[in-house]
Amino acid sequence: MAERKGATIPDGTRHRVVILGGGFGGLQAARRLGKAAVDVTLVDRRNFHLFQPLLYQVATGGLSPGDIAAPIRWALRKQHNARVVLGEAVDLDPSRRRVALADGEWLEYDTLVVATGARHHYFGNDAWEARAPGLKTVEDATEMRRRILLAFERAEREVDPERRQALLNFVIVGAGPTGVELAGAICELAQDTLREELRQIESSEARILLVEAADRVLQAYPPDLSRKALESLTRLGTDVRLETMVKAIDDEGVELEAQGRRERIATRCVLWAAGVRASSLAWVLEKGAGAALDPSGRVHVEPDCSIAGHPEIFVIGDVAHFADPETGVLPGVAPVAMQQGRHVADAIQQRLAGREAGAFHYRDRGSMATIGRKAAVADFGSVRFSGLPAWLLWSAVHILFLIEFESRVLVSIRWVWNYVTRNRGTRLITGADTEGDAPAPQEGGR
Amino acid sequence: MAERKGATIPDGTRHRVVILGGGFGGLQAARRLGKAAVDVTLVDRRNFHLFQPLLYQVATGGLSPGDIAAPIRWALRKQHNARVVLGEAVDLDPSRRRVALADGEWLEYDTLVVATGARHHYFGNDAWEARAPGLKTVEDATEMRRRILLAFERAEREVDPERRQALLNFVIVGAGPTGVELAGAICELAQDTLREELRQIESSEARILLVEAADRVLQAYPPDLSRKALESLTRLGTDVRLETMVKAIDDEGVELEAQGRRERIATRCVLWAAGVRASSLAWVLEKGAGAALDPSGRVHVEPDCSIAGHPEIFVIGDVAHFADPETGVLPGVAPVAMQQGRHVADAIQQRLAGREAGAFHYRDRGSMATIGRKAAVADFGSVRFSGLPAWLLWSAVHILFLIEFESRVLVSIRWVWNYVTRNRGTRLITGADTEGDAPAPQEGGR
Repeated sequence: MAERKGATIPDGTRHRVVILGGGFGGLQAARRLGKAAVDVTLVDRRNFHLFQPLLYQVATGGLSPGDIAAPIRWALRKQHNARVVLGEAVDLDPSRRRVALADGEWLEYDTLVVATGARHHYFGNDAWEARAPGLKTVEDATEMRRRILLAFERAEREVDPERRQALLNFVIVGAGPTGVELAGAICELAQDTLREELRQIESSEARILLVEAADRVLQAYPPDLSRKALESLTRLGTDVRLETMVKAIDDEGVELEAQGRRERIATRCVLWAAGVRASSLAWVLEKGAGAALDPSGRVHVEPDCSIAGHPEIFVIGDVAHFADPETGVLPGVAPVAMQQGRHVADAIQQRLAGREAGAFHYRDRGSMATIGRKAAVADFGSVRFSGLPAWLLWSAVHILFLIEFESRVLVSIRWVWNYVTRNRGTRLITGADTEGDAPAPQEGGR
Repeated sequence: MAERKGATIPDGTRHRVVILGGGFGGLQAARRLGKAAVDVTLVDRRNFHLFQPLLYQVATGGLSPGDIAAPIRWALRKQHNARVVLGEAVDLDPSRRRVALADGEWLEYDTLVVATGARHHYFGNDAWEARAPGLKTVEDATEMRRRILLAFERAEREVDPERRQALLNFVIVGAGPTGVELAGAICELAQDTLREELRQIESSEARILLVEAADRVLQAYPPDLSRKALESLTRLGTDVRLETMVKAIDDEGVELEAQGRRERIATRCVLWAAGVRASSLAWVLEKGAGAALDPSGRVHVEPDCSIAGHPEIFVIGDVAHFADPETGVLPGVAPVAMQQGRHVADAIQQRLAGREAGAFHYRDRGSMATIGRKAAVADFGSVRFSGLPAWLLWSAVHILFLIEFESRVLVSIRWVWNYVTRNRGTRLITGADTEGDAPAPQEGGR
């Protein structure tokens, strides 16, 4: 297909960098190229950058989507060598160095940076997705919020004790940071926020199950922090099931298996925090550029983050499989993506200056997870925190990394407010009800 | 149908007030009954109270839905004589004094307060709804936001000048406060917020048409304020078409008629701010209780806000047609609904005390509308403002009437921030694309 928009193609005298994805990795790469003599085109399906680590706060009514999102155009408005394209890359032609967008346009590049992230993954049980939503997008989060809040609303009106308890059982699959943070937030929603507001039920009857196949929570963290996190979760009232597998999910509940014994939990709300799979653009790279994929669909990359045989194609962030010689495969977390984004931006400039681009080295500055209102665990190698100091640190770091100053102020205020009042002010049940038995939001049903 | 939830019915020894609708009128009535010896049940289809006058800010990316919404349970959490039911009233049995909810439950009342509001109305052209969304719900606002922002995104990538201009033509139907405020906000979005962010087009090429059938904007206001508003709109660049009718809306544009002449405007974004129709519960009152409806579907009410023949049924707010002996039919605005809510709460208590409930008298404290960043008109009878003083007053009053202290602080900060930076930070394109030619938000298409 021919370029149908000649006017939008850079003049060709400068090196053209096309970045696919405006998440942590892609946006960092674009910004790091701010003063470089290159033309940057950032392509994203969404018009905003999303601070995914706080999505669980949206899912539990603590923050609004707008609080943790920033328009990509706004983030790059002063960077005159960058343009933003709202679109989705669907094909790659490495011999002519161009990518196809879903609407048929081809974008030419001299260097391509693929930073399209990951999507949750159901390990071959794709039918579970409708019953157990994951948490990757704003729509995921508002859907999760709708299900959690509707469960309490329905329990409030249910007189049959068995059906009522089923409505008050929440099952979270996966005890990584997202699962742990969700569990803590739902515990507090039930015990603090809703306690005064419900009249027919005790919201403390809610039972939050956190199911994990491994033998500890927060598997990526040191064992003693996992132990502390487990203690905090248990103290909050979470029922943590380790070494437990989910065998089935249906409209009435879930089936768990632990040590060969099966157990059925009646529930109307199953939340998925178990696995991710790389963006489907990895397949395009496999097919088009011969890239090798790992079992999670991630692209194996060279030490400089490029793919074998194509030094002009970099793959970073959650879509990349980077085997660090010291620490093993790097986890799919924001700091890795951001550092890789900066690395490839530097590598592009080094090559343009005729120098060799070096290998990427990840500097692990530590990991953190929060468990409810004032507990958290933080691991900074030699220094490890837990409890309130970790929670304060967690709050400060997360606020600091929000891309907009406005958001930092607003999120701080909401947090202080939520902390003091135990309210969660953005508890909006919005969107259509896919189950069809709740009141329609409007006469028009939209 | 029998009551299937005996446990949720109040004990019957106290007067039972059922309020349908948690908008301005219903919530005021419930709160005013806070200390009364009655059992209050507030029924709403949504779990939150919405500050509708600021919905246009959500539609134009200035505020998040969560900023202008408050959970109804939270608003009534300390009022122990009140319970909240998430549900939709669909039928009425006045002889047994009970209302049916959509899920089959019947709620018994001694006094019923109907405050279910209004929905936008297409004057018999219901097919226009899909092409020209109105602005009554959070979903309406995010859909409008999606369409406005997508039009700019598509224009940025369109090289055909004619198609590009069609994308940059915005047609707003109806020049009441909502239409005027939308027009002002879209002008600023184009001229200020997006100016620096777009690379291929000049956002100032955007053309905002405000179409009004009457001979002036803000018809409910005094003529000299209409004139000032028209001046402000024209200065901002809005193309205001008075005495102009919309004859057709299709996928390619709108057809207008003025003084017998027809004109076609190519546009991809038509926004509806023209007419409202009372909630469909008015029909239920007509059928079940013999209430008389006006042509807009509103229920004719007696001087005390009850309906003829049923002193135990009050109808307030946008769903009521209240003919004031001095000023004529009261407009569908928040102050009327709030004052009527307080009036019926007082009337209920007066009757319980054996006294006669008096007639409702509306105290018009003035009206305001805002036109863009620092222009507004305000009419307080003897005193009229326009320009910056009116804008500051408008901001202060709107912030003051937000139900949550938290929201007041957050909205203030967002406004100061938006004012200084000319940014609109909540410009999120979310939800599914009904036209099918934009990038899907996610692989799953949700």
